[in-house]
Amino acid sequence: MDGLIPVEERPALAAGPGDFVGRSVTRIEDAPLVRGEGLFAADVNFTRQLHMRVVRAELAHARILSVSTEAARAMPGVVAVWTAEDVADIPLIPFRATKVRGLEPYCQPVLARDRMRYVGEPVAVVFADDAYRAEDAAEMVVVEAEELAVLLDATAAPGEFAPGLHTEPTIVRKEYGEVEAAFRAAHAVVELELSVGRHSGVPLETRGAIARYDAARDVLELHGTAKKQHWNRDEIARLLGRPPQGVHLFEGHVGGGFGVRGELYPEDLLVCAAALRLRRPVKWIEDRREHLVATNHSREQHHRIRAAVDADGRLLGIDDVFFHDQGAYVRTHGARVVDLAAGMLPGPYRLPAFRVAGHFRLTNKTPSATYRAPGRFETTFVRERVMDAIAARLGLDRIEVRRRNLVTAAEMPHARPLDTLGVDVVLDSGDYGGLLDKALSRFGWDALQGELAARRASGECVGAGLAFFVEKSGLGPSDGVRVAVDATGAVELVSGAASVGQGVETVLAQICAEALGVDYARVRVVRGRTDRIEFGNGAHASRVTVMSGSATWKAALAVREMALDCAARLLQLPSSGLTIRDGVVMREDGLAGPTVTLAEIARGMGPNSRAMHGHTPGLTAERWFWSDHMAYPYGIHLALVRIDRGTGRVVAERYLVANDVGRAINPMLVEGQIVGGLAQGLGGALYEEFRYDPSGQPLSTTFADYLIPTIAEMPVVDVLIAEDAPSPLNPLGVKGAGEGGTNGAGAAIAAAVDDALRRPGAITALPVVPATVHRLLGGLA
Amino acid sequence: MDGLIPVEERPALAAGPGDFVGRSVTRIEDAPLVRGEGLFAADVNFTRQLHMRVVRAELAHARILSVSTEAARAMPGVVAVWTAEDVADIPLIPFRATKVRGLEPYCQPVLARDRMRYVGEPVAVVFADDAYRAEDAAEMVVVEAEELAVLLDATAAPGEFAPGLHTEPTIVRKEYGEVEAAFRAAHAVVELELSVGRHSGVPLETRGAIARYDAARDVLELHGTAKKQHWNRDEIARLLGRPPQGVHLFEGHVGGGFGVRGELYPEDLLVCAAALRLRRPVKWIEDRREHLVATNHSREQHHRIRAAVDADGRLLGIDDVFFHDQGAYVRTHGARVVDLAAGMLPGPYRLPAFRVAGHFRLTNKTPSATYRAPGRFETTFVRERVMDAIAARLGLDRIEVRRRNLVTAAEMPHARPLDTLGVDVVLDSGDYGGLLDKALSRFGWDALQGELAARRASGECVGAGLAFFVEKSGLGPSDGVRVAVDATGAVELVSGAASVGQGVETVLAQICAEALGVDYARVRVVRGRTDRIEFGNGAHASRVTVMSGSATWKAALAVREMALDCAARLLQLPSSGLTIRDGVVMREDGLAGPTVTLAEIARGMGPNSRAMHGHTPGLTAERWFWSDHMAYPYGIHLALVRIDRGTGRVVAERYLVANDVGRAINPMLVEGQIVGGLAQGLGGALYEEFRYDPSGQPLSTTFADYLIPTIAEMPVVDVLIAEDAPSPLNPLGVKGAGEGGTNGAGAAIAAAVDDALRRPGAITALPVVPATVHRLLGGLA
Repeated sequence: MDGLIPVEERPALAAGPGDFVGRSVTRIEDAPLVRGEGLFAADVNFTRQLHMRVVRAELAHARILSVSTEAARAMPGVVAVWTAEDVADIPLIPFRATKVRGLEPYCQPVLARDRMRYVGEPVAVVFADDAYRAEDAAEMVVVEAEELAVLLDATAAPGEFAPGLHTEPTIVRKEYGEVEAAFRAAHAVVELELSVGRHSGVPLETRGAIARYDAARDVLELHGTAKKQHWNRDEIARLLGRPPQGVHLFEGHVGGGFGVRGELYPEDLLVCAAALRLRRPVKWIEDRREHLVATNHSREQHHRIRAAVDADGRLLGIDDVFFHDQGAYVRTHGARVVDLAAGMLPGPYRLPAFRVAGHFRLTNKTPSATYRAPGRFETTFVRERVMDAIAARLGLDRIEVRRRNLVTAAEMPHARPLDTLGVDVVLDSGDYGGLLDKALSRFGWDALQGELAARRASGECVGAGLAFFVEKSGLGPSDGVRVAVDATGAVELVSGAASVGQGVETVLAQICAEALGVDYARVRVVRGRTDRIEFGNGAHASRVTVMSGSATWKAALAVREMALDCAARLLQLPSSGLTIRDGVVMREDGLAGPTVTLAEIARGMGPNSRAMHGHTPGLTAERWFWSDHMAYPYGIHLALVRIDRGTGRVVAERYLVANDVGRAINPMLVEGQIVGGLAQGLGGALYEEFRYDPSGQPLSTTFADYLIPTIAEMPVVDVLIAEDAPSPLNPLGVKGAGEGGTNGAGAAIAAAVDDALRRPGAITALPVVPATVHRLLGGLA
Repeated sequence: MDGLIPVEERPALAAGPGDFVGRSVTRIEDAPLVRGEGLFAADVNFTRQLHMRVVRAELAHARILSVSTEAARAMPGVVAVWTAEDVADIPLIPFRATKVRGLEPYCQPVLARDRMRYVGEPVAVVFADDAYRAEDAAEMVVVEAEELAVLLDATAAPGEFAPGLHTEPTIVRKEYGEVEAAFRAAHAVVELELSVGRHSGVPLETRGAIARYDAARDVLELHGTAKKQHWNRDEIARLLGRPPQGVHLFEGHVGGGFGVRGELYPEDLLVCAAALRLRRPVKWIEDRREHLVATNHSREQHHRIRAAVDADGRLLGIDDVFFHDQGAYVRTHGARVVDLAAGMLPGPYRLPAFRVAGHFRLTNKTPSATYRAPGRFETTFVRERVMDAIAARLGLDRIEVRRRNLVTAAEMPHARPLDTLGVDVVLDSGDYGGLLDKALSRFGWDALQGELAARRASGECVGAGLAFFVEKSGLGPSDGVRVAVDATGAVELVSGAASVGQGVETVLAQICAEALGVDYARVRVVRGRTDRIEFGNGAHASRVTVMSGSATWKAALAVREMALDCAARLLQLPSSGLTIRDGVVMREDGLAGPTVTLAEIARGMGPNSRAMHGHTPGLTAERWFWSDHMAYPYGIHLALVRIDRGTGRVVAERYLVANDVGRAINPMLVEGQIVGGLAQGLGGALYEEFRYDPSGQPLSTTFADYLIPTIAEMPVVDVLIAEDAPSPLNPLGVKGAGEGGTNGAGAAIAAAVDDALRRPGAITALPVVPATVHRLLGGLA
């Protein structure tokens, strides 16, 4: 198990569900939501608050000649109007480091300085005592600009870069094995050119940020954020010249995160700076049109991939060159999507040689960054298209060619000479072939072939496709949790994790309850507040259940041990013979005997108790979990589609996602993650695309143009949650479950459409829009 | 040193001032205050808040027949009107336990149930969307009641208790030595009957309470409180049926505490209950008239004291019976004032036998509780009146009789077979005689006698008096502090202490800075928030500098040690040769060499640092300090007064307070405490009194009737801060400095007035109002 971390804690839980872990208990976070007492960003209000409205660039590339704010300033209720000059002291918004160097000059200023580089870029901001007055005044700000040539094609040769676009080609390269030799030795080489469209997370709740400066305590507060509070706090503090202890971020409820929410955007810094300078709370709520041009886009990539195979269809090598359309600026993720695409491309297959060059290219579009399954949605599409192409080229069954290449259970853990996100890629555990069998059986793959034949015979255009995916999860390096039992036996769990609506509270409460022997409903989970815990890594990269969950497990076990030790003294019984059930310490053997409650123990451990002299008081423990490696969940998407011959419309009829998550703390929540993730995957596969006209004007600025799937577009979805391969990297055996539902959707849909069209390899680009299908059907182009 | 705790930490600081400890640095808390950015209770506002107005009893004792709220409910903007029925589920407000039993039935309900027992008692509450509408509506509430006989005299025999007043006599008894034998053996017995008037803290800022229920997090917040947040949190939680973790208290700035602010009052619970039930924030700000009848009164006691002395004036025994006028209910202090009065009466004198019986009596007046120097202002007056009487009786000099009785430095620590506040009375250290010499010399006592004679000869009515006092401070049992250095080297200190304006932040920052080697201005002190630290004991009983200060010292030293250990590894030097100056770790010997900053060390100790794997990350430490004993500061008040023969008005011309505080962390703040405390002491000595008419109607409900001294009434005050007797009970040697300025004022003024009148023992009651003096001068009664 070279490169794997030994499990530090007691062995994983019993195989079956425990009292709380493994059970589909209801969500503890839902009570205020169903009562209408949720606290979304728009619900956060402070007295005397100002409202901020952003004046955004209307040209994709232009030199700013002047920004006239006089008329806006004169509008009623307007307190201030800022342009770049007013925030010249705020540095460019930074990004989290990767190994890719040289991106710093391309970061975004909070307000456009001499140039506007995409439509929607913040150019000025208006602060008024009312949101409507702010919006009216913003329309009075006049930006005079000289239009410049635009660059919209990330595959353009560097020499073709539009003059003045501030970019040099940046290339992320990864390579191992003898790639040239593999291609020389190949029985066959398949070569594909594949594109993934520009789309992104468009949560029901748009972004929002409310800043307040508490002068009495010298604390700047930012409310409404989520996902990466501590990193954001540190950067806001640095950019605004304050100590981190004087900045606190507060997360409320979240109407969808998906990777796009909670990054550090210009608007976050603008409300903070305004709260400090104007000495009034400042509120900004994004509207939908803004969201579609201002919030991170994602996905847009163009791959030129070659695969070398032997006569049996076994992969000898892959060589991929791809172009990542970053949009106009480098945002907080830096080059993470490119890095992930490059590092995760091989997926579940044994790949002796691999070379990838990811061109990180700036264009005059909205900046892009991570979106659910970043780099994996794209490369699963690419890789699985390659697998289908190999099958077609060698005349092999699509399933069989995959089986021959899957890394086997016996080969686990499987280390690749690759890294991504700064950690070595070591597939930690898995039975890929076993899950494939289960999935095909559950979907009725073999019977389906006959059914498809019959339906085709009756004139229908139907097909099935599959895609194998490998996800990554549990990005380290650390996460800490503090668990405390109060004098009434109620449990508080403070975590540096964030909640983006995925059920963090419930899952951590279940883990805590399981370890501590209390009802999970008595566990209060505090998250997303930088004032309650000094460090945290938020919620991203499917890390919370793995990292925060493991820290919770450790902290709760530590509290359990403290409680048992104390109870043993009180009850004069050996602690080894005691257990905790529903908050009561009792004999483990079930025999009658004295008991003591956690509440009683907690009261006895207060600071004024003589027994605590010399100790840190409280029935409480903070524990940290570290990991140098990620855990790799995996799975299969199976899709059955029907094509409307008249319109080219693709209808997903039936769908299965099989996903091994190591261990499902709450299967209901895992299923919810998978089905919700699939909806977004299908959006990217079939509907969603940010399109631009040749001048760089965005064409997808309403939900009439940017099409997200509704319940009517969703197929019947079956979910197969597998727990065959618990991760050896953490005490719970868990792997993340947040991104698998999205990951394989583009690939599976493409394969199913190929199959329906009876034209292997026909689909080379996502989304598979009706116009494309119609053309492939031989209809009008 | 039987009964003393050994000092746990390194020996006390060097004798002279350190970099920060012992220096009169400016207050770090003043910046927002001088900029007008303070956050007092009235400054706390939430959107959608309701305003609460209390309908108060207008009769001192009456049976409630009905409370009609219909008219009030119909007023515009009124959301709810509550009477006792609406809050019948909220238990009586509890008190902090003492050894006195049987008081529970006499606690106050949040709204009067069947009876009203003092004018000002809350009978109903109105909640409206505007404070003015709430006040208007409150006037429409009609209380129909049957008036009952009132009891206003706490010395009345139990049989005389007004029918229906819910009280039985409760007596606090303390006794040691052979009291009867002492009186039998006495050369002389002096017997006095002495009274202290009803007065209390009337801070510039009245009380205020703003409650908010955060349904999204299920947290009830109470803002505007101070002093005892954690105890109040626990009790609010218990009374409202919530876990303590679901209740948080937040302290803002405070315009004076003085013991009366921050206790748990009916209004605190009412706003909390309303916030929970009405689901809107609820604000209540006390007006001045309310304050004078609703906030704790204090002081009113009547003593019948006898002292047995030998022929040299040495005390053989004291026997005191006193009556404490508690008002209508037992409030959160329980019987503490009575207990303190009884336990602290002997003061600085060697007293072989002592017996005291404190009658804790309920009357139809505003409930009373602690006020700056509770029980000591009263008993210093009583004891020092006795010392003056002994001097007069035996024809001894007032100074000499005290000298003969003072416990000597050689007798320290001096244990008395007494307890108070549940801890044994052990005078920890002191050189009483030495301080007396210093004080007399500084005041020019001997020269003054000639000056007085000359002025009297010229017709002036002038006199001087003195009083020796012993204070208590540093009540345990525990206090904890967490110190953390952030990535910029800024230091945060989180304490369970409270700030009532006395300079807590500055003092703790100085101690932290001294230990850690940073600028005190870089230390941010977080206090008075139950969400930042699980336990705390607030600010009362002059405990903060002793208890929280010592915890700060321990925590900061722990952080220092962590930093030096880390620096030693980084710099490859032994940590014993390193020191920290202004946040930089360097060689202690001053030689050039590599350095590292605390900021760099803190960054290296973040959770994502590989070096921290297996450790709790952060350059941070939480440490607790425990104490089973109190530290006893002491001092002398010396007063020079002039009496206006025409009006009987007493003018304090010149004043000295000598106070040994063990160690003055910030002499300027100690001086401020002493002078401010003296102003309040003089108020109680000369001006302030809550008076009632025979029906129990309060007569002191405005500042025209309740007279607080202004700058015009203040004498020239000299302060002598002594550090001759550091406390052996804590690593800093500190004793509290908050109450000594008040303690001896009544006694010293009484003695000076006696002296001016040339009638020893003439003054037997406080305040010494002009009518009394005029009568004693032989003027009209």
